[in-house]
Amino acid sequence: MADGEQAAREQAAREQELTDRVAASFDGADDERLRTVLQALTRHLHAFLREVRLTEDEWHKGIEFLTAAGHLTDDKRQEFILLSDVLGASMQTIAINNEAHANATEATVFGPFFVDDAPRVENGGDIAGGATGQPCWVEGTVTDTAGNPVEGARIEVWEADEDGFYDVQYGDDRTAGRAHLFSDADGGYRFWGITPTPYPIPHDGPVGALLAASGRSPLRAAHLHFMVTAPGLRALVTHIFVRGDELLGSDSVFGVKESLVMDFEELPAGAPTPDGRAVEGTWSRTRFDIVLAPAG
Amino acid sequence: MADGEQAAREQAAREQELTDRVAASFDGADDERLRTVLQALTRHLHAFLREVRLTEDEWHKGIEFLTAAGHLTDDKRQEFILLSDVLGASMQTIAINNEAHANATEATVFGPFFVDDAPRVENGGDIAGGATGQPCWVEGTVTDTAGNPVEGARIEVWEADEDGFYDVQYGDDRTAGRAHLFSDADGGYRFWGITPTPYPIPHDGPVGALLAASGRSPLRAAHLHFMVTAPGLRALVTHIFVRGDELLGSDSVFGVKESLVMDFEELPAGAPTPDGRAVEGTWSRTRFDIVLAPAG
Repeated sequence: MADGEQAAREQAAREQELTDRVAASFDGADDERLRTVLQALTRHLHAFLREVRLTEDEWHKGIEFLTAAGHLTDDKRQEFILLSDVLGASMQTIAINNEAHANATEATVFGPFFVDDAPRVENGGDIAGGATGQPCWVEGTVTDTAGNPVEGARIEVWEADEDGFYDVQYGDDRTAGRAHLFSDADGGYRFWGITPTPYPIPHDGPVGALLAASGRSPLRAAHLHFMVTAPGLRALVTHIFVRGDELLGSDSVFGVKESLVMDFEELPAGAPTPDGRAVEGTWSRTRFDIVLAPAG
Repeated sequence: MADGEQAAREQAAREQELTDRVAASFDGADDERLRTVLQALTRHLHAFLREVRLTEDEWHKGIEFLTAAGHLTDDKRQEFILLSDVLGASMQTIAINNEAHANATEATVFGPFFVDDAPRVENGGDIAGGATGQPCWVEGTVTDTAGNPVEGARIEVWEADEDGFYDVQYGDDRTAGRAHLFSDADGGYRFWGITPTPYPIPHDGPVGALLAASGRSPLRAAHLHFMVTAPGLRALVTHIFVRGDELLGSDSVFGVKESLVMDFEELPAGAPTPDGRAVEGTWSRTRFDIVLAPAG
């Protein structure tokens, strides 16, 4: 047994020496931050390899996985972002860069479907733009963490239609289910959108195969995206989720935070709407009060 | 200060909760090994992100790096293997899978230039096959760890020419600087090759840019590849290096091990050769005694 222990100690020393040597190879980086990041990457990568005792066959599978992800990635499909998403790395990066600040609204993942220059709608307008789905009235306020209303905050909203597709996924230049509007003098905002529905992340590639092998669903919990910006305040990128959605606990990209789960009230056909609009069929409504942290 | 500490504790708790949630998402993997690997990958990846406090801009740069590596990779160029190599991950995987065993010869990286079905040469033959460079006589024995000679061990050798290129890099179907031979009844082997010279790994892609930004050279220390197999013994993939090579301490893929650095004796033009072959100009000679560990 003593021989075995001795051998194990020597093996561990050899592995540690290699890790140290690789980390030291980055000592010459001019950029201090680059050096810090690469040396930490080296240490954590080697710790992973050593902990799982990665086999050479598994190493080859890893190379093949990255190669397949690279070949699938183009200007319309980003398999590496999906990989980061399903490993929770995207969400962890969000968490690190949006530290809790008093009662400020929490951030979540940006996702790949935001588009610059979405049309402007007036407060109370309709962002659906022809996107199919149950009408949904959304209203709330934008305030700072002291409760002061924020006038003129720019509110970008975007969402998938009832079939689970964003406008850009149709490939026909339509603009639907997205717009921007501004908060009024009381910080208030309101618009018609559509009730969010769940949809899968693209899962016909290596990331989808990884999810399948792990018994994980590619579905995202139903959500509506917000990006809210105002001078002097921290930009907020977030979603709201639907209370009762059975996917809240298994969102494929770990975007759900309890504070972002909202009550969506279901209204029957014919129920009077907040702005008097005539709606055919059922509709829903929700309230989302947004609190922005100070900038910097 | 107490408030700051409280906030830091809450932030750390949120980040840890996310890591735990992602790890738990792999609980349903049918394959226990896959579950182990993915859960460890998740924990080490998140620990890296949290330790360096990765910014969102750095996250984007990481996605762009992987995308560029993927687009450069094809059946002739493998940028992900290069990335693994320069981060020492390839060499660490080798170390993990080839644990020290008594006096057995140490392993090192396989590299991308091995070719199946290289020609056979007899003991004492020439593997250069037209590759340019200073002639080099290589001899030694193959034994097990008890010192018993191993007859009939298959010895594959391959190397770059004096311009730093392997035959396959010329793209013209030549076969040069590679062969296989078998050890004789005493475990002995010997062949003519060429004296190894340094060469760079491909460095016109994102991995090359990473090396440049880190002040690292893409050069590999001069080496000659061996792969040695024999029934009942552990396959050995290794190189020998040249004592005195100034690159021994900065090999770009961390392949150098002290036990693999050999003396290459330089002989003057006209010095008698071991097998009586007439050599024009200077030549060199080295000895490499190979010890194979038991299989399994």
